[in-house]
Formats: sequence, C-alpha cells, structure tokens
Amino acid sequence: MNRYTIVNDKFIPAAEASVLITDLALQRGYGIFDFFKTLDGQFKFLEDHLDRFYHSAAAMHLPVAQTREALKALLCALQEKNNIPNSGIRITLTGGYSPDGYTLASPNMIITQNPLVNPEFNVKGIKLMTYPHQRQLAQVKTLDYLMAIYLQPLIKQHGADDVLYHHNGFVKECPRSNFFIVTAHNEVVTSGKDVLRGVVRKQLLKMHNSELSITEREISLEDLKTCEEAFIASSTKNVLPVTTIDGHQIGNGNAGEITTLLAEKFKALVFNVDSLTL
Amino acid sequence: MNRYTIVNDKFIPAAEASVLITDLALQRGYGIFDFFKTLDGQFKFLEDHLDRFYHSAAAMHLPVAQTREALKALLCALQEKNNIPNSGIRITLTGGYSPDGYTLASPNMIITQNPLVNPEFNVKGIKLMTYPHQRQLAQVKTLDYLMAIYLQPLIKQHGADDVLYHHNGFVKECPRSNFFIVTAHNEVVTSGKDVLRGVVRKQLLKMHNSELSITEREISLEDLKTCEEAFIASSTKNVLPVTTIDGHQIGNGNAGEITTLLAEKFKALVFNVDSLTL
Repeated sequence: MNRYTIVNDKFIPAAEASVLITDLALQRGYGIFDFFKTLDGQFKFLEDHLDRFYHSAAAMHLPVAQTREALKALLCALQEKNNIPNSGIRITLTGGYSPDGYTLASPNMIITQNPLVNPEFNVKGIKLMTYPHQRQLAQVKTLDYLMAIYLQPLIKQHGADDVLYHHNGFVKECPRSNFFIVTAHNEVVTSGKDVLRGVVRKQLLKMHNSELSITEREISLEDLKTCEEAFIASSTKNVLPVTTIDGHQIGNGNAGEITTLLAEKFKALVFNVDSLTL
Repeated sequence: MNRYTIVNDKFIPAAEASVLITDLALQRGYGIFDFFKTLDGQFKFLEDHLDRFYHSAAAMHLPVAQTREALKALLCALQEKNNIPNSGIRITLTGGYSPDGYTLASPNMIITQNPLVNPEFNVKGIKLMTYPHQRQLAQVKTLDYLMAIYLQPLIKQHGADDVLYHHNGFVKECPRSNFFIVTAHNEVVTSGKDVLRGVVRKQLLKMHNSELSITEREISLEDLKTCEEAFIASSTKNVLPVTTIDGHQIGNGNAGEITTLLAEKFKALVFNVDSLTL
C-alpha cells in the first residue's frame, strides 16, 4: 500500500505522517477540518467543501498558506499519486507548533486520503438516542468531538447507532450529520440554529420547490413524537433513514416515502454534479 | 539543551517528540491531561494531580497503561534525566491511533517537562472580561480549550488578560484557573458547579476555618458588582488578584487584604508541602 498523506505541502507515506507534540491540536484540541469524497476519481461538491474549509479557518484565526487554486492543485496531485477512485479526503488545519502550548502559531495542514469503506448508498435505517448538548462554535467544522466520543459507550449501551443532540428543548444535529424530519404535513424540516452548515444539507435545501417543502427552522423534542419520517444527511452517510429515536418508532419503522425520494434525488445529484477531475 | 519527553515509556529528545496523525487528539480533540510543577526538584501536590489524572482518564474511557507507582517512577526518571529544578510537567493521555479516526484506541501517553517561565509568585493583578460559555464535561481536565483560544483576539481587543466564563447568569471559571470572590461579609467563595476541580482550589478550600470562611457555591454575575475582592487560582498562577472585570474596578483596584493573605498562606504551603523527591 503506497498511500501518501500531505503534511504542509510534503508528500509523506501515510503510515509515517506525524506532527510534533507541541501542535495545538494535541495540546488544546484546536483546529478545523473538512471532509469530502471522490467517486470514480471525481471530487464531490469540492467548491462547497473548500468554501466551508476557508470559512472555518478564518473563523478560528487560522491562516491558510495555500490559495484556493494551490490547494486544488495539491488535491489533484494527491489523487494522482494515490490513485484511489472512491475515497474520503480530509483536510485538517491545526493551531500549529505553539511555543507556549497556548498561543496560536503557524498552522499545520494535513491532507489524508483513504479508500471509502462503503461507497454504496445505504438504505438501512439507524436508531438514534437523544442527549442534551449544544456543540460550541457549532457552525464551524472544528476538531471538537469530545462529547461524541465520550458518549460512545452510552450509545452502545442504549442499543443505538448514534446520538442526536438537543438543547433547551430543541433538536440540533448528530455529531457527524445534520438531522431532518418530515412532518405530518409532508414538510421536510432541518434545524436552522447553531448547527453545522452541512454540504449535503445545503444541497437538500436547494431541492425545495412548489411540490416539496424543504426548510430550516427549529425542531422541538415534541416534534420527534409527531413526525412521519426522520433522516440524517452527511457526506459519508448521504441520506440515511432514522427508524427509531429513544426507542420510539418513527412512521412504520422503515425508510419513509419522502426520505426514499430524497435519497434517490441526492444519489442522482452526486453522480451528475459538475466536479473537478484530473 | 538535552531535554527529553516521554512518549509511551520511551525517552525522546523533546524537539523530536511526535505522534502519528491518526491520533484521536489530532483527529477529534480527544484526550485528557494534567499539569503540575516542580520547585527545587520537588513535585508539588503530586498525589492530588495523579488523583485527578487517573480520574480524568477513567471518566473519558482512557485506560492508563501505567500503575500509579510505575507512573511516579517514570516522573522521577524524567526529572533525573532532565535536571530542571523548577519546571512544569504535563502528562497527556490521548484517544490513541484510531483505525477509523473515531473509535477509541490504545491511548498514547506523553510526558513533557519544561522550565518554569516565571517561578516567582506574581502579585500584580489581572483584568478579566466575561463571556457566556459553559465548558463541556467541566469537571474533567480534557484537551478542550477551543473557546479559550478562539477568544484570544477578543480578549486582547478588550484590553483584558483573560476571560471569565459565565452560564445562565452564574460565573464559572477562567479557561486555565478557578475563580474566587471575597464578599462584603469577608466570605471567600468559589463556583461550586460545573467547574474544574482545581488542585490549588482544593488546597484553598481546606484553609476554611472559624476565622476565615472559604466555601464553594454559585456566584452570580450580580455578585461581581458587589464583591470586595476577586482572584484566580491555578498551579501556574498560584493565587493571583483580579483588579477589574469588564472594566469595573474590584475593591480599590489593588490586591485585596484577604487575597494577599491567601496568596501568602498558599506560598508557604507550596514550599512546605510533603512532596515526592528523588
């Protein structure tokens, strides 16, 4: 396996890629990242992901050494070198090698590419459990998954697949995906406040039309009991049905009609979207 | 400079100590640490710090490979090898090299020792600004300083030295220190809920007696306007007076009488405390 990782413009064999322990990601959990897929060698929704990457970096006071064009060139070079047609690419930007373990330094950029574990679209539903938590700086894609990983044993203990955060009575998101419901009036709704601006979420919101209402607004915990369908959306999971929440069955316990429609529409979009190719 | 860092039982030249980028600290900000001082070659409040280190590790599902005695032996070996009489020692335990970048793996332990920048006790007061934030899993000493570092430019912009978090109307703590006030009735009070269990805080609470009341309970934002004195406490800063909060002067703007008394009492304690020596 001759896979490479980029660390600050240098190509390093993936298994050897490292950072010094003075990096603020290791010292203080400080950094941002973005993650996207290649399918058949094509970068998917790259512009959206780069928009978010540069936005996250700026929000967290982390200058990006590369211009957008230079970063795209690096991504193409990595793709060419690794030659993994179906992959997940992660660009991480850390707080850098801080002399005092606290003050921001020159960021380190790390780009990894790994084969997609399951490039197929999954239609099997998942079970969620709810948990009270509001992600800090939620609109920025930071490295902070402290609560998510801390909760893994509890999630397993509850027989759930993932956790759905809520705060002050309102449902927010899962740690790595946005959350949607379909109401009794066939409206698709996703949480609008203090959640990550997901790229799949953005694409789904653009599908709003006169026949299918897809909007963002607050979702209450009560709404979970009356909704007809529920699903999560992310670059890894695409559109994935939620069949139970805290043991309460959603709809008939299978993928709902509108969820299935959106999953199909998104799948078609992913394979037809204009993409940066080599 | 022949300083060494311990990475999983191995002594590595400090400037070369690194971890692979698959570590969950770098991928997801997941890990815990503790920090304590040596003065004149003596570990200060080592048992308290080890208590907290093992507690943090257990709380975050991170097994510690070393028994407490083995860890102490490592610390003594590091102290002997580095020979820095006045130092700060940090023990970090990360989520380890995760195969999928999310699931907990075997933790990596990193022990660094650095000369104390300022081993003297500082009596010059500091200026705080308040900011609404509740640290997640606040009683555990995790790597999460995302908000603290994110706020650095704002703190500078406000001409403050540090930030004081508050949540739902109650004052909590600073990112790296506990916060105390002295009320108009000469009671010393520190926030009791959802704050880090600081080792200096613990020692100060033990000074409570019939002549000097030192207790933990909630401190409201209103209390900041009526308090006579304020100070912060940490292993790095010891007992350090706070002279203004959000531009509002505390007391006469100098170190208060009780703050000075506690600073002196703590200084005496630090130099007389039973310590593990080589």
